[in-house]
Amino acid sequence: MNTFGRNFRCTTFGESHGRAVGVVIDGCPPGMPLTEGDIQPYLDRRRPGKSPLESGRREPDRVEIISGTFEGRTTGAPIALVVLNQDVRSEDYDALRDVYRPGHADYTWQMKYGLRDHRGGGRSSGRETVGRVAAGAVAMRWLAPRGIAIRGEVVEVHGVREREAMEAEIRAARDSGDSVGGIVEVIASGCPPGLGDPVFGKIDAAIAGAMMGIGAVKAVEIGEGFGAARLLGSEMNDAITAEGFASNRAGGILGGITSGEDIIVRLAVKPTPSIRSPQRTIDLAGVEREIRIEGRHDPCIAPRILPVAECMLALVIIDAMLEEAKYRGWD
Amino acid sequence: MNTFGRNFRCTTFGESHGRAVGVVIDGCPPGMPLTEGDIQPYLDRRRPGKSPLESGRREPDRVEIISGTFEGRTTGAPIALVVLNQDVRSEDYDALRDVYRPGHADYTWQMKYGLRDHRGGGRSSGRETVGRVAAGAVAMRWLAPRGIAIRGEVVEVHGVREREAMEAEIRAARDSGDSVGGIVEVIASGCPPGLGDPVFGKIDAAIAGAMMGIGAVKAVEIGEGFGAARLLGSEMNDAITAEGFASNRAGGILGGITSGEDIIVRLAVKPTPSIRSPQRTIDLAGVEREIRIEGRHDPCIAPRILPVAECMLALVIIDAMLEEAKYRGWD
Amino acid sequence: MNTFGRNFRCTTFGESHGRAVGVVIDGCPPGMPLTEGDIQPYLDRRRPGKSPLESGRREPDRVEIISGTFEGRTTGAPIALVVLNQDVRSEDYDALRDVYRPGHADYTWQMKYGLRDHRGGGRSSGRETVGRVAAGAVAMRWLAPRGIAIRGEVVEVHGVREREAMEAEIRAARDSGDSVGGIVEVIASGCPPGLGDPVFGKIDAAIAGAMMGIGAVKAVEIGEGFGAARLLGSEMNDAITAEGFASNRAGGILGGITSGEDIIVRLAVKPTPSIRSPQRTIDLAGVEREIRIEGRHDPCIAPRILPVAECMLALVIIDAMLEEAKYRGWD
Amino acid sequence: MNTFGRNFRCTTFGESHGRAVGVVIDGCPPGMPLTEGDIQPYLDRRRPGKSPLESGRREPDRVEIISGTFEGRTTGAPIALVVLNQDVRSEDYDALRDVYRPGHADYTWQMKYGLRDHRGGGRSSGRETVGRVAAGAVAMRWLAPRGIAIRGEVVEVHGVREREAMEAEIRAARDSGDSVGGIVEVIASGCPPGLGDPVFGKIDAAIAGAMMGIGAVKAVEIGEGFGAARLLGSEMNDAITAEGFASNRAGGILGGITSGEDIIVRLAVKPTPSIRSPQRTIDLAGVEREIRIEGRHDPCIAPRILPVAECMLALVIIDAMLEEAKYRGWD
Repeated sequence: MNTFGRNFRCTTFGESHGRAVGVVIDGCPPGMPLTEGDIQPYLDRRRPGKSPLESGRREPDRVEIISGTFEGRTTGAPIALVVLNQDVRSEDYDALRDVYRPGHADYTWQMKYGLRDHRGGGRSSGRETVGRVAAGAVAMRWLAPRGIAIRGEVVEVHGVREREAMEAEIRAARDSGDSVGGIVEVIASGCPPGLGDPVFGKIDAAIAGAMMGIGAVKAVEIGEGFGAARLLGSEMNDAITAEGFASNRAGGILGGITSGEDIIVRLAVKPTPSIRSPQRTIDLAGVEREIRIEGRHDPCIAPRILPVAECMLALVIIDAMLEEAKYRGWD
Repeated sequence: MNTFGRNFRCTTFGESHGRAVGVVIDGCPPGMPLTEGDIQPYLDRRRPGKSPLESGRREPDRVEIISGTFEGRTTGAPIALVVLNQDVRSEDYDALRDVYRPGHADYTWQMKYGLRDHRGGGRSSGRETVGRVAAGAVAMRWLAPRGIAIRGEVVEVHGVREREAMEAEIRAARDSGDSVGGIVEVIASGCPPGLGDPVFGKIDAAIAGAMMGIGAVKAVEIGEGFGAARLLGSEMNDAITAEGFASNRAGGILGGITSGEDIIVRLAVKPTPSIRSPQRTIDLAGVEREIRIEGRHDPCIAPRILPVAECMLALVIIDAMLEEAKYRGWD
Repeated sequence: MNTFGRNFRCTTFGESHGRAVGVVIDGCPPGMPLTEGDIQPYLDRRRPGKSPLESGRREPDRVEIISGTFEGRTTGAPIALVVLNQDVRSEDYDALRDVYRPGHADYTWQMKYGLRDHRGGGRSSGRETVGRVAAGAVAMRWLAPRGIAIRGEVVEVHGVREREAMEAEIRAARDSGDSVGGIVEVIASGCPPGLGDPVFGKIDAAIAGAMMGIGAVKAVEIGEGFGAARLLGSEMNDAITAEGFASNRAGGILGGITSGEDIIVRLAVKPTPSIRSPQRTIDLAGVEREIRIEGRHDPCIAPRILPVAECMLALVIIDAMLEEAKYRGWD
Repeated sequence: MNTFGRNFRCTTFGESHGRAVGVVIDGCPPGMPLTEGDIQPYLDRRRPGKSPLESGRREPDRVEIISGTFEGRTTGAPIALVVLNQDVRSEDYDALRDVYRPGHADYTWQMKYGLRDHRGGGRSSGRETVGRVAAGAVAMRWLAPRGIAIRGEVVEVHGVREREAMEAEIRAARDSGDSVGGIVEVIASGCPPGLGDPVFGKIDAAIAGAMMGIGAVKAVEIGEGFGAARLLGSEMNDAITAEGFASNRAGGILGGITSGEDIIVRLAVKPTPSIRSPQRTIDLAGVEREIRIEGRHDPCIAPRILPVAECMLALVIIDAMLEEAKYRGWD
């Protein structure tokens, strides 16, 4: 399943070392102004190689709108967005062709498909998120004029929460040939109340699925999250006043439907599985091997996941708004 | 969206104080032995009123198979399962008709739909989970002979982890007219490697969505979960040996696909929002009110959510197995 | 797949000789007045046994709303509608348990599922349409106040088109232990222009699928239909004037999208496969047999299919309107 | 909805005069050999300009596989296929920018979207079928080794059925600045029994939807089709013998499930709406206009639709086979 969303449907395609990566968006409302200039800044933000703490892969990541717009506006036709792969060094991966990298999808993909494109992780590479970010940018283009803003930040790295300390942890991990995990927080403000559907279509369920569907994410929480398990009902419940909610421990969602308060999401990002220090694994023949993973890798991918998480939240929200609109359109 | 799953599709229906609750299962493999006796034990387990720590609502919850079986076997036709509502005391809710209970879906449903069945929470009641558990029981009936077992437990209540201490916390909360949250852990063993689809169909994404879609759940984690954010890559990666994985910090899932190791899921359950102690809220007219919620409520719903979480995990797994089977059926 | 529609989703369940037949409707707009009285007339119209030309099976077919309404209005929750089976004579089918009735689904179901409920055709019985008609009635309840009306008639039976002649054909077939086919025409008026989606979501594609999905239907045409293959472009094209279209050979649909003109659909209904006259077939063991099908059967099912076709058209239209609303709800 | 299929999901994109047209296939089984050489012959067959009776637009239509294969085999990742548009003469359409061409989607698209890419019909152009044919070619690549073959032919043009007479009709229409319709027949042999799902997932319903979803198709029939309405049951029913079915009036489908006999489908293609002879219409302002449509158009599109219909049938069959496989994969 490479399609996300039921109303604003995004189908991503492409592998890390293939010809291109991209996305086809089906269901974008017609008549919306849209050019490459609306999308490029989001791709620039997710692009690697912007700081010494990030992967050295250099990609211009120039997006091209192949279809779905006419004279600068969306037409209602599917929007195909393509980004060519350029700075590809497949030879870096030749040594990994026949071994399973611990913490990666190598083993499970081989079990599932019986073959895999091992170059740079192929389809399971973080590079696939180029399509998600491009689609998220289009969603933001529609959400912004409707007063909905999405922002996020890395709030923790390897257990520390101060900016300098976080960078120090990343630097230390990189220098020791290791990697570190972190926590990303994403917040959406301006959402109208009433988004999301009860039971299986809860918007927090959609958010949890969207976030856990980002590679390396191992946990998701809304509002108080795990903290809620340690509270009393009298502490957790948000009182309601004539001016609105007195607090927002619910994280903007009650019964799976938005309350109009900020939607607050946090996700746990595991340490980058690609590390230089030696690891035990096996090869395709089941023979034990010790490997060191060379190549260009982020010592911490939380900062790279941040823009992806923001875009996934945008995709969940636009999808919920189009769903909700069904009951408003004819009245 | 009241349907869960794309291959083993479960559509639940019914309100807390309506005539019945139930589920229609579409996509259950044909020829499987199935009688009410296979389903009833699961409903008995989720049933309230089994201990002094649970809601006093007394429901026999007898399930009836309305369609989809013939001479004790599934036929491939949709399986309709119905449970009549009996011990209904709608009058308990008359006082709540026009006010929004804090921590409940009352406010958001009113915003979304403009009206609601306020009796016992209507559709947003935990009673809806009768349908999920009945469907999960059918899924378990198919999974068990294939070596897949699902078990779970309440591992924490209000911050404590010992059985007696947990019960003491629940008792204390009940006696003070308050409630407490907790953490539920669910584990699936025996899953073959290769379940789940990359990108948006990751099985951990499906699990996260399924768990967050249970009322009162505010967080979900897989394997190390949030703990992964505090580890080094050299600590988090599970080494692979000729005998298999040397550890299971991944929680049985790599790249969104099962590894064959146990699938380990934890969810945070918020304190029951219905409490006797006074709370500030507003009524439909926006006028501030102080309310005390009477009626029969669990001081901690973590134990009630446990069987629901097990059944949701079963539904995710059977769905992934049927999906995976597509590539095996003709070869 | 027992679910129809993507916005107004109807999941039917039940077998001919099971406990009940019914439907769960998910996605019905909230706040719409709805009682059993809105649905019953449609079920009465499809009910058998109303004329000597119809099956003798006597069913009161009383519908019960199990969920989804509160104080006479829809709440947005799934609407479960159930009709109990009563006048069941399974013994009529004992002789057919092990043989494949020619023209029926017996053989193909056995090939697909390896077992089947042979009683009255089980799930493949026309009785399943009770759920479709009940759902269609709910759709009509929403469409009518929006100016959309659906009507139909049997326009041909066994090649003749005059009312008396059609009845004579049916009577003659019945008396000779045979059956006849016919053609049903259904027309929807009042649809706004713009319904339907290009490419694979064309409303005529949805209509064709919906109609061909009715048992015994072997052909579907829109507007001129097969006649269009025998025309010149200059004859087929509907000229457009300042007052609107000068003709409606397109049958109200251009490029898969409604034009605002009447939607005109015709379907071919094959002769009832259950006939008294002897037929050659085989049994489960592959042994050749000659069978005579006793029991109560309509000599022509076109009149029985008429209300089903009207309801399926209503389901397609409400689904397209809710889909279209997505782009109107927020502007 | 620009996606077709639920298991072998094809999402087409692109407009007639945009940068490219193409398709993303999600759900293709892994490990299947696939190169551009498997797809190109199908595109060459649908390509215009091969005979004096066809549109003069000259397109090499070279397909490129952008993703989803590795070392000549499918990987299970989405397969993106792209064909660049080259011989584009948008200026031919300048005169049509503000008028609705009779028989085209111009009016309905404008009503739906409020704007449209008028150049060559934009998204509603037959050029969109490049993506369908490319996807169909991939499906055929999987079906062929499993013994399933699909063939078709134009069996009628403007009421005549002999090859020379059909060509004469097309030539005459072209010379008089008019166009003619026709009937296409497509047959699939080698399908196993048991494909298709009862009720709403009937394979004939899927076929009807797929065929009616092709531009210019106004009718679809299976087996005897409309002829079945004129038969007796004793004539229509296919007797079953120890050697199999004695006839195939059902067209290979009973109760929506394949019988193993040939699947026989016929569709009615309306005359090309673009004709040189003068037509009455209106412009965007509602002012009446008389237009003559210049540019390069097929006087009969039945031959152009033939390969598209074959490919759509292939897509329906592979989708049904993958669906059916779900119940075979684990047993």
